[in-house]
Amino acid sequence: MVETLAQGADGAAFLEAAAALLGPKGFITDPETVAPWLTDWRGRFTGRALALAAPANTGEVAALVRLCAAHHIPIVPQGGNSGMSGGATPDESGHAIILSLRRMNAIRAVDTATRSATCEAGVILQVLHEAAAARGLRFPLSLGGKGSATVGGLISTNAGGTQVLRHGSMRALVLGLEAVLPDGQVFDQLVPLKKDNRGFDLKQVLIGSEGTMGIVTAATLKLEPAIAAREVLWAGTEDLFKARELLLLAQRLTGPALEGFEVMPQHSLDAVRAYLPGARAPLEQDHAWHVLIELVADADGAERLPDLAQRLLEEAFETGLIADATMAPNETQAEAFWTLRETISPAERAIGPAMQHDISVPVEKMPAFVEEAVPLFETQWPGTQAICFGHLGDGNIHFHVIAPPGADRASWEAGDGKAISRQVHDMVTAWGGSISAEHGIGQLKRDELDRLGDPAALAILRAVKHALDPLGLMNPGKLV
Amino acid sequence: MVETLAQGADGAAFLEAAAALLGPKGFITDPETVAPWLTDWRGRFTGRALALAAPANTGEVAALVRLCAAHHIPIVPQGGNSGMSGGATPDESGHAIILSLRRMNAIRAVDTATRSATCEAGVILQVLHEAAAARGLRFPLSLGGKGSATVGGLISTNAGGTQVLRHGSMRALVLGLEAVLPDGQVFDQLVPLKKDNRGFDLKQVLIGSEGTMGIVTAATLKLEPAIAAREVLWAGTEDLFKARELLLLAQRLTGPALEGFEVMPQHSLDAVRAYLPGARAPLEQDHAWHVLIELVADADGAERLPDLAQRLLEEAFETGLIADATMAPNETQAEAFWTLRETISPAERAIGPAMQHDISVPVEKMPAFVEEAVPLFETQWPGTQAICFGHLGDGNIHFHVIAPPGADRASWEAGDGKAISRQVHDMVTAWGGSISAEHGIGQLKRDELDRLGDPAALAILRAVKHALDPLGLMNPGKLV
Repeated sequence: MVETLAQGADGAAFLEAAAALLGPKGFITDPETVAPWLTDWRGRFTGRALALAAPANTGEVAALVRLCAAHHIPIVPQGGNSGMSGGATPDESGHAIILSLRRMNAIRAVDTATRSATCEAGVILQVLHEAAAARGLRFPLSLGGKGSATVGGLISTNAGGTQVLRHGSMRALVLGLEAVLPDGQVFDQLVPLKKDNRGFDLKQVLIGSEGTMGIVTAATLKLEPAIAAREVLWAGTEDLFKARELLLLAQRLTGPALEGFEVMPQHSLDAVRAYLPGARAPLEQDHAWHVLIELVADADGAERLPDLAQRLLEEAFETGLIADATMAPNETQAEAFWTLRETISPAERAIGPAMQHDISVPVEKMPAFVEEAVPLFETQWPGTQAICFGHLGDGNIHFHVIAPPGADRASWEAGDGKAISRQVHDMVTAWGGSISAEHGIGQLKRDELDRLGDPAALAILRAVKHALDPLGLMNPGKLV
Repeated sequence: MVETLAQGADGAAFLEAAAALLGPKGFITDPETVAPWLTDWRGRFTGRALALAAPANTGEVAALVRLCAAHHIPIVPQGGNSGMSGGATPDESGHAIILSLRRMNAIRAVDTATRSATCEAGVILQVLHEAAAARGLRFPLSLGGKGSATVGGLISTNAGGTQVLRHGSMRALVLGLEAVLPDGQVFDQLVPLKKDNRGFDLKQVLIGSEGTMGIVTAATLKLEPAIAAREVLWAGTEDLFKARELLLLAQRLTGPALEGFEVMPQHSLDAVRAYLPGARAPLEQDHAWHVLIELVADADGAERLPDLAQRLLEEAFETGLIADATMAPNETQAEAFWTLRETISPAERAIGPAMQHDISVPVEKMPAFVEEAVPLFETQWPGTQAICFGHLGDGNIHFHVIAPPGADRASWEAGDGKAISRQVHDMVTAWGGSISAEHGIGQLKRDELDRLGDPAALAILRAVKHALDPLGLMNPGKLV
């Protein structure tokens, strides 16, 4: 498995020292054991690595990082290996090690009084959900990969999901952070201070920087009271402008009860019904757009919640914002509604090759953006279909352009598909939006960020990167 | 007014070019006009300056910053000049210019749909409050200096206040930011994207960094619905452990209605009554500690609020957390309760010289910290009195040590006072807390941060500073 090494690197001495440091459970060079971690879960990127290191604690991470610095060995940190942008996959040089955090999977504490949980980086999201639930609390961030995504990966990619509308993305839920810096120093701000004005909030440099500034080893996370009740609503509406009016109405009427607001076109619903055996459309008729709304309440507000939901739908009908709507009569139906939403991605993928874009624009501009973008791409690229769905409440949609029927995947993706993606990113940038709303940059969009990023923003990013990691060993080739 | 210049600086050419750039209203060298801005409002620091620059727009700020970089002229940004740590006061060299943002005082937009306001840096907090109120909204951050503090200063110092418990400090309220970087580039992230994962959240490097990383020129700020009702409660309790239990009870019972939770000892209440003509104690008897609680509601929750407040007090009585309590029967009384709280600082100052510390520890540790610290300092420094009051809900108290009666201010402050401050900071650091919870570091605490800061945290701060401002021209001598 040992490959040609980076300039200045001293492979044999490094391998010996790392093996001595971490032991056989913590340092693996056997190709078969390492292989599964060399490809991202979507199968878009495959790299090579010197070894897979899996330290057992923060001290070992720090020692390993120092060792890598001394030997000029690049480090690719990896959590659940379920990222969307290849941020945890090494390049093809084979110079780097993968630093897996999965052995650091202890939930160090759950504090019901302060409503917080202190977790090591390798804790799996689902495990955190269960630990919180066991104490009458919840961690208000969830996403499709919850069975594999880890706390460290979620922080390093500032993960989103369907609850960002109310609770913010991962950044808003990190109260304290522990990390190993590129020089091996341990940055310890795990104990959360609600107020601390000793300069800027340093942990923000690590959150969302995809392992390029240091290795997140643990975090103290914000918990919320468990939900006592929820109402899941499904409505049909004729355009996204009305959907956006419905969002504003829901925010005004239901305030903090509004936890999710997702949209999808009829096309996506049809795709899900074709893909998922037994899936049923919530409404009798087709609608240009479907809206999924989740309202939640803790024990105190549970009783009022059905009335609130009813009032929202009534007012939306009266003002002509929706054409039809239904409330899930029970939890089974509520789950079924969400399953429709969560199945869009695989269902759309099953149709055939598509270029997928995870984009955001200011929330208020999203309807106009979609109305302009969809016909533009379909006209300009004959045979394609443009599909938008997702988190309207966050100004974040997933914009897929499906290849013409019968197109050859590889050649279409490399040719027209690539040109389409550039054009989508150009348009989003012109609208003041982001080419990565929640999936991160990784290796997938690094060149596009380089091409389209605001020069002042890129200057800050690069200056900070260079200052913290002058040797360029932290997740090279990603983000910056 | 022209002083000896920094090495490499070219004073005459700079003055000529800056005067041509900004015109007579924007570039002032007349000593009498400049003088008031050379001393911080507490009168602790006085410096000198080459000139006072007051650009009219972001373009002028950028051009001025480029000019300063070319001539090696340091820049001290200044908002309302009401900071607590001398962060906006130049040093005594006279090499720097003051860059006042006060002419950039336009509220560019208030958007009721997105509940946000876009303000230039020189907008005064009170003006923003009024603009929001005129549209049925509010900006949920307030503090004593609201008639002078500016948006730019509040962002650069990550200001706090009495509503942090619910709404967070300034950092949590900044949705978008515009700033001029040390090389004169304009960083424009004014248009807020709810989700944007192109690396870490770059604006966080500017928030709270006291003008050492760049000049904040404008921001888009979060607004909240106006309050429809509030209940202000006053309770007496025997120790801070019970006060903390009361806080947890209030959080559990009243959830998002809880907006303020302040504590003060009997000593502070007595000091206020001695200082403020006509001030009346809310409760008949003395109590070791007094707690001020504010509950608020928007239109939807207004009706239930008095019941909620009543229930909180009843449960607190029944469980023995409080000995006595009252609810302000009307707005006049509610304001009177808050006036008592807000008069503590001047009332305590009127007693005589005191070392004042703005500290935080994890919220749950605060009662034990105070219980240990107060007798420790009073015993070790005979004749002193140690007083704690403030934002218990945030783990942030103001810890004053009052000089022995008759002590000479200057010599006490320079001798015992200084030693006391070091000891307070040592103790806070040992407890995992912060030597600056909300007032910032400025020039007042720079040496203490240097002495006590976590090496890994200081390393990040310094690396970022050096990377963004290699010439060291941005607010030199402050923070880092």
